[in-house]
Amino acid sequence: MHRTAVKKVVLENVLDANDTLAQANRAQLDQAGTYTINLMSSPGAGKTTLLERTLERLRGKLRLGVLEGDVQTTLDADRLARFHVPLIQVNTDPGFGGECHLDANMVRSGLSELPLHDIDILIIENVGNLVCPAEFKVGEDVRVMVYSITEGEEKPLKYPLMFRSADLVLVNKVDLLEHLDFDMEQFLGNLKAVNPGAPRILTSARTGQGVEEWCSWLEQRLPVQSRA
Amino acid sequence: MHRTAVKKVVLENVLDANDTLAQANRAQLDQAGTYTINLMSSPGAGKTTLLERTLERLRGKLRLGVLEGDVQTTLDADRLARFHVPLIQVNTDPGFGGECHLDANMVRSGLSELPLHDIDILIIENVGNLVCPAEFKVGEDVRVMVYSITEGEEKPLKYPLMFRSADLVLVNKVDLLEHLDFDMEQFLGNLKAVNPGAPRILTSARTGQGVEEWCSWLEQRLPVQSRA
Repeated sequence: MHRTAVKKVVLENVLDANDTLAQANRAQLDQAGTYTINLMSSPGAGKTTLLERTLERLRGKLRLGVLEGDVQTTLDADRLARFHVPLIQVNTDPGFGGECHLDANMVRSGLSELPLHDIDILIIENVGNLVCPAEFKVGEDVRVMVYSITEGEEKPLKYPLMFRSADLVLVNKVDLLEHLDFDMEQFLGNLKAVNPGAPRILTSARTGQGVEEWCSWLEQRLPVQSRA
Repeated sequence: MHRTAVKKVVLENVLDANDTLAQANRAQLDQAGTYTINLMSSPGAGKTTLLERTLERLRGKLRLGVLEGDVQTTLDADRLARFHVPLIQVNTDPGFGGECHLDANMVRSGLSELPLHDIDILIIENVGNLVCPAEFKVGEDVRVMVYSITEGEEKPLKYPLMFRSADLVLVNKVDLLEHLDFDMEQFLGNLKAVNPGAPRILTSARTGQGVEEWCSWLEQRLPVQSRA
């Protein structure tokens, strides 16, 4: 589609500044020895419920920390507070109706409030959105995407960027498979078309299916000296 | 959160240009006698399936037209092509990873390809995204939001802008109610908290529940002289 030249210039400037800050975040996290995961999905795909299962299972085995991104409210952080892990909620500026993603500058503000030296793995739960979060590096080591099968088979083709940039795809809500007209084979084919070889785990945050495999994957991210 | 002054200025400029173009679109649509609906939701909430049901039911009763917004592909437009209504697909610029919303300028390009004088109601299916589309007027008369109950109860509080700006909320996928841990009363309470008095219809694009009520609502949008 036609776009105004002015707007294109603007977006490039924003990205440049963001990349610089993302690199600075990454350096800070590396120095603290904190491995960082950018967790992304559409709204309601199950990121927070999956985090609850993850914190339950890995408590005492790994020192986890969470940075919660949301447009408004601390509802997600409130749900995770009972696990007593380092936790910070970042609300995206409500001035513009709320930013639809975390950018490196927002994450930077959150990092300054976290005891990074006491965190082995930091999970950044991005704002629920299938498009924009993938456009902004925040300083993460890897990107993990949660995809709910209630969203249909064709989304990898329609919104390829996030699927393409994911280092791992958690295919979630598989407990609903029998109640949906969802063709898993077709979805996995579409995923393969945009991100060949992407590792994936079938999960149900509700029933716990696949959570053990996901937690093993997390544990393997750690440098050898930190592992139990 | 802290934001740079530069970025804030940028966003205001973009919105100003968009508002000007949205007004121009609206004037063009008014002149053609075309009532326009901006249909918004998260990805996979069921907008396209609902449109299929709508076109099936209203074919021959109302002259409908569709403008399809997607980041990439013509998959949605392809699904609707069999109804032989005026139809245009607008793909958001893939240069920036794909814009996560339609803006007035993109819609303007699409309008120029549609026979507006032969369309009583134009439905603009926005890009699937619960945040950004609500920030950009495109020239619509009303906004209709589709919300899938698989997304949970708390989204009106976490992402209030779209819920707040909706003139009608279609609460979709209610056929899954018995298979989900979804508290309808709590969701409707949250919706009421951000948009008191918003009309809503419980729908299932799959089973057809609520589709008749939604189509009646659409028919009532027409000026008296156009109604059958």
